[in-house]
Amino acid sequence: MPCSRDDAEALDRSDPLAATRHRFALPPSQIYLDGNSLGPLSRASADAVDRTVREDWGEQLIGSWNSAGWVDLPRHVGRRIAPLIGAGAEDVIATDSTSINLFKLLDAALAIRPDRPVILTETGNFPTDLYITDAVASNHGAARVRRVAAAELPDAIDDSVAVLVLSHVNYRTGARHDMAKVNARARAAGALVLWDLAHSAGAVALDLEATATDLAIGCGYKFLNGGPGAPAFLYVSPALQRLLRNPIAGWFGHAAPFEFGDHYQPAAGIDRWQVGTPSILGLASLHAALEVWDSVDLQMVEAKSAQLFDIVMTWLDGPLASHGFELLTPRQPARRGSQISLRHPQAWPICQALIADGVIGDFRTPDVLRFGLTPLYHRHVDIHDACERLTTIMETGRWRDPAFRTLNRVT
Amino acid sequence: MPCSRDDAEALDRSDPLAATRHRFALPPSQIYLDGNSLGPLSRASADAVDRTVREDWGEQLIGSWNSAGWVDLPRHVGRRIAPLIGAGAEDVIATDSTSINLFKLLDAALAIRPDRPVILTETGNFPTDLYITDAVASNHGAARVRRVAAAELPDAIDDSVAVLVLSHVNYRTGARHDMAKVNARARAAGALVLWDLAHSAGAVALDLEATATDLAIGCGYKFLNGGPGAPAFLYVSPALQRLLRNPIAGWFGHAAPFEFGDHYQPAAGIDRWQVGTPSILGLASLHAALEVWDSVDLQMVEAKSAQLFDIVMTWLDGPLASHGFELLTPRQPARRGSQISLRHPQAWPICQALIADGVIGDFRTPDVLRFGLTPLYHRHVDIHDACERLTTIMETGRWRDPAFRTLNRVT
Repeated sequence: MPCSRDDAEALDRSDPLAATRHRFALPPSQIYLDGNSLGPLSRASADAVDRTVREDWGEQLIGSWNSAGWVDLPRHVGRRIAPLIGAGAEDVIATDSTSINLFKLLDAALAIRPDRPVILTETGNFPTDLYITDAVASNHGAARVRRVAAAELPDAIDDSVAVLVLSHVNYRTGARHDMAKVNARARAAGALVLWDLAHSAGAVALDLEATATDLAIGCGYKFLNGGPGAPAFLYVSPALQRLLRNPIAGWFGHAAPFEFGDHYQPAAGIDRWQVGTPSILGLASLHAALEVWDSVDLQMVEAKSAQLFDIVMTWLDGPLASHGFELLTPRQPARRGSQISLRHPQAWPICQALIADGVIGDFRTPDVLRFGLTPLYHRHVDIHDACERLTTIMETGRWRDPAFRTLNRVT
Repeated sequence: MPCSRDDAEALDRSDPLAATRHRFALPPSQIYLDGNSLGPLSRASADAVDRTVREDWGEQLIGSWNSAGWVDLPRHVGRRIAPLIGAGAEDVIATDSTSINLFKLLDAALAIRPDRPVILTETGNFPTDLYITDAVASNHGAARVRRVAAAELPDAIDDSVAVLVLSHVNYRTGARHDMAKVNARARAAGALVLWDLAHSAGAVALDLEATATDLAIGCGYKFLNGGPGAPAFLYVSPALQRLLRNPIAGWFGHAAPFEFGDHYQPAAGIDRWQVGTPSILGLASLHAALEVWDSVDLQMVEAKSAQLFDIVMTWLDGPLASHGFELLTPRQPARRGSQISLRHPQAWPICQALIADGVIGDFRTPDVLRFGLTPLYHRHVDIHDACERLTTIMETGRWRDPAFRTLNRVT
């Protein structure tokens, strides 16, 4: 039996996260299941950007670097992200993009493992992670990239491996690695691990310190709701901070950027990972979007995500069972992130038919439907309604409408 | 005789650029002479950011990557910058920061001059240019950086030089290189030239094509008024576009980013210089700020900048002559950018006293006062009034007030 609307409403009434929904400006006509791609606008972000533009920039101009604290914003944002990922407050900074942060940390990590030729990563890792990993290896000459399937990773971690580059939660399937186990195995082999938390931060409980994580990068615009192209973040464990050198040695990573010295001297702490002038509008938006986490913990978020997932499963095992969907996401909560991915040979037109009905998921080539589960603003009834609309689309065959077959680019 | 207020008012009455001032939200209590550090807010930017946040992000969410044209914004901004720098519309892109763009282009340029060991740059170049140049050389192992004074540059360009990295206009002194001459000399020696246009774009007339420029980078937040930490831009000459490889091979530089392929294939054109997801709020602001240039050309801007400079000179040669200022900026208009820099042993407290009187210039260590001249929004009377207030500060000795001696960081 699929979860009924009454059941979903009852779950909403007892939902300890019900109130956080009102902090977001959600379009009333959409059930937005794409927060794993671009999180929605929070009222706090809208206000912060407006204030930053009209007051700080418009009225105080250059003075806002000090008076509005712009110069410290990358650190302030890092301090708000730190508790979400189990990191020390001074070990996280918001800067650049996820791709650039991966480039910087991977290059730096390789440099302290000069006798090891291999960067180990996973087939099916997010494309930019694969591209940047290849690029760094090629820049280093002697390094080479080995891509193996997740199941083969444990055996592939040996003393030839300098660094592992892994996404904690796979963008396509939602499968989650056991971070502590991978870290321990890598450490035993003398390898470093660099985790991409793009689909983890704000989605699942993380504890970088307890899992003895070396390095991590992550995204500001997915589950952290920082806005389109929001600055990314990076983490370096305290033990590694003085050992690693930023290959893109820009002035904002200098120990004293405003002394305008002729020679680069890296900042002592996490600031050395900055490069150019920080992107203030994006940082202001992300900083404000992170306010919501003051009253929320990730265990609550994970528990609700599991409930939302289970609602979908009641429909997949019930009315949708005969419609050819294959569940790509692991069923066991600890083995997955906060999304549900379904394979279907007609994934593209089904995705388009859902969008036409106000259910916004996304398509990943060649045949995957992907739905983000975001407990901060999803009600249980939203998930119920989305499943019901999908069922109608499948039962009526409405996805066959030729209007849904054109392949427009969807990001 | 110093230029009088009547004279300045007369110049304002006949100023063909008088109207553009109203497109900016200038604080009424300031004479803002720091547009060479952070340009002011335009009404167009304020509106564009508001629309991007509340409508595109808030209401259309992920759909705005297509419907609001986010995915093309780096190119659209590039197309608006192109005419300001004399570049082809498809040869400029807005992406990342100036420092990161320098890193990418310099690394790529070195790779196509593998037998030449020297990166040539200028002593006193902007610090991040020096730092990044050193970093790229160090990453390449065989390369080394040679820093020479501007006057020694012509003799230093020989067949050991792979790439010259030069700021077209010096941030500290305002001195401007002869771009065509340097390019020609470098070309004759088989070297490439990479120009930093941070203090040129939007300040002086540029023609990258006519001067046969190879490579350029520039800043979005100074004379282009894109906002704090606005995305930077880069230019690659058509002849070099297919030869150069982005060392930070991220997904937004891929020929088909949304096919999520496992292997990097660079975009055919200027798009290959993108890396991660573009910073949409910053791009939206910069895109709108560039609207003003539709009705303005750089010759008009340069002519008015020269007039503003001349007003300052009437005061420096008159009432300020006995107060110990040394002009650092070349007097000949074609030899300078759009700023005036003065050396004074008490530059710091004088700068602070000016700020207290509403005249916002800046200080560059150890003894330089720097004033940006920005014809889009400066009136001639603003420059008159600033000179008059500086004269009062010097004549009364008010800069000696102990309140002005504390050294706060100023960016």
